[in-house]
Amino acid sequence: MRPEPPAAPPLALVFDIFGTVVDWRSSIIREGQLLQQRLSLPALDWAAFADDWRAGYQPAMQQVRTGALPWTNIDGLHRRILDSLLLARGLQFSEADAEHFNRVWHRLLPWPDSVAGLYRLKQTHTIASLSNGNMALLVNMAKHAGLPWDAVLSAELFNHYKPDPEVYRGAARLLGLQPQQVMMVAAHPSDLRAAAACGLQTAYVARPLERGPGGAMEAWRDGEFNCAVGDLLALAAHLQQLAPGQQAAAVRG
Amino acid sequence: MRPEPPAAPPLALVFDIFGTVVDWRSSIIREGQLLQQRLSLPALDWAAFADDWRAGYQPAMQQVRTGALPWTNIDGLHRRILDSLLLARGLQFSEADAEHFNRVWHRLLPWPDSVAGLYRLKQTHTIASLSNGNMALLVNMAKHAGLPWDAVLSAELFNHYKPDPEVYRGAARLLGLQPQQVMMVAAHPSDLRAAAACGLQTAYVARPLERGPGGAMEAWRDGEFNCAVGDLLALAAHLQQLAPGQQAAAVRG
Repeated sequence: MRPEPPAAPPLALVFDIFGTVVDWRSSIIREGQLLQQRLSLPALDWAAFADDWRAGYQPAMQQVRTGALPWTNIDGLHRRILDSLLLARGLQFSEADAEHFNRVWHRLLPWPDSVAGLYRLKQTHTIASLSNGNMALLVNMAKHAGLPWDAVLSAELFNHYKPDPEVYRGAARLLGLQPQQVMMVAAHPSDLRAAAACGLQTAYVARPLERGPGGAMEAWRDGEFNCAVGDLLALAAHLQQLAPGQQAAAVRG
Repeated sequence: MRPEPPAAPPLALVFDIFGTVVDWRSSIIREGQLLQQRLSLPALDWAAFADDWRAGYQPAMQQVRTGALPWTNIDGLHRRILDSLLLARGLQFSEADAEHFNRVWHRLLPWPDSVAGLYRLKQTHTIASLSNGNMALLVNMAKHAGLPWDAVLSAELFNHYKPDPEVYRGAARLLGLQPQQVMMVAAHPSDLRAAAACGLQTAYVARPLERGPGGAMEAWRDGEFNCAVGDLLALAAHLQQLAPGQQAAAVRG
């Protein structure tokens, strides 16, 4: 079922980050290979390492959500998972090396279209991150990768992780907008469905290589979201064509 | 008494906004004059109007601080003050005109050095707002004035107004830094003293025209802050000379 067409184009776009704007898997593989060389480690399957690290993420957030863990930011959750992965592989890193490698998530590299696409979208819309990554991670990533956010927003500001509704509603509130004036942009249908349930508009961006060649992608139905595009440049073109006259209202007086 | 020289230069700079980065008084005078012309209002003293609007700000925040008012963001406080100023002057604005004029605070113009200074500081440091202005106000202002923040931080994120310590400590925490790794930049000694009490480094920026020619400035003692400069370009030059080698650490891996 196609969603009701929204009354007006969005004024602000909020972006999922891991997988949507940056390529976490290739970035971790690359830094793992560099680390292997620098520390003269035995050859390791860094793709499997990246996948295992990422796989620990949802269960860790669930522990926070259920209260099994007190509020812990993503840096803290990533470190817990990293420590268990190192232990399972019989690797011992110095504290400095472990901390540096844990911060690879602050240094993830953008998909090839991300920086150019964000610059284009920023001309007509307010653009903000809306990630489960913590603020420091997102701020450092933006400087490292050159992501030109108008605002860095994080689940950390709401003490809730996506897909909890507090995150989507809180982002609209902080931007001074109604939920329907905000569009969630993500490569993950589950994220978009949760945003839509809070009244946000939705844009699906296909990232077929997020989990590597042949990796699984979440299923979705044609027409399920307000738009579906192949990359952020295509999103900019779509929004431009949608309502060129109204775009100037993105920064409203 | 000069503060102990800090162990290391700051990694992040957080900026007071109203008066420090933007010239609220001239901006309000200008928009008031345009409004007078558009609505064919009788001639008004817009400088006095601006001063009265600003003067209502501290008492309004104090009402929030004491609990006399529930948490109200600056847009809401500005609107309460505006309504009383209009009433006192016998002016009746349409709701649309009142709301638009209230949002002049989203459209304040930067001091002449602000944009160039921030671009220079951004090359070597993480730069963020740290204002009592709400997030939407600060995000809209940044787009309107071209302020290239790495992060927009606001008292609104902490449900406390400066000079409450929660704001300064909260900013350092969200940036993933120790308080002494963060420098508060402000034209107001009271703001800097509160930041220093939380362990932040401090930079005083003189803005002698904030309250107009001959307007009052808060007193301060020579050597009271870690540095005192005439504008943001001078701050960039000062920090560059302080420790050119360490500046690259601003974006830390």
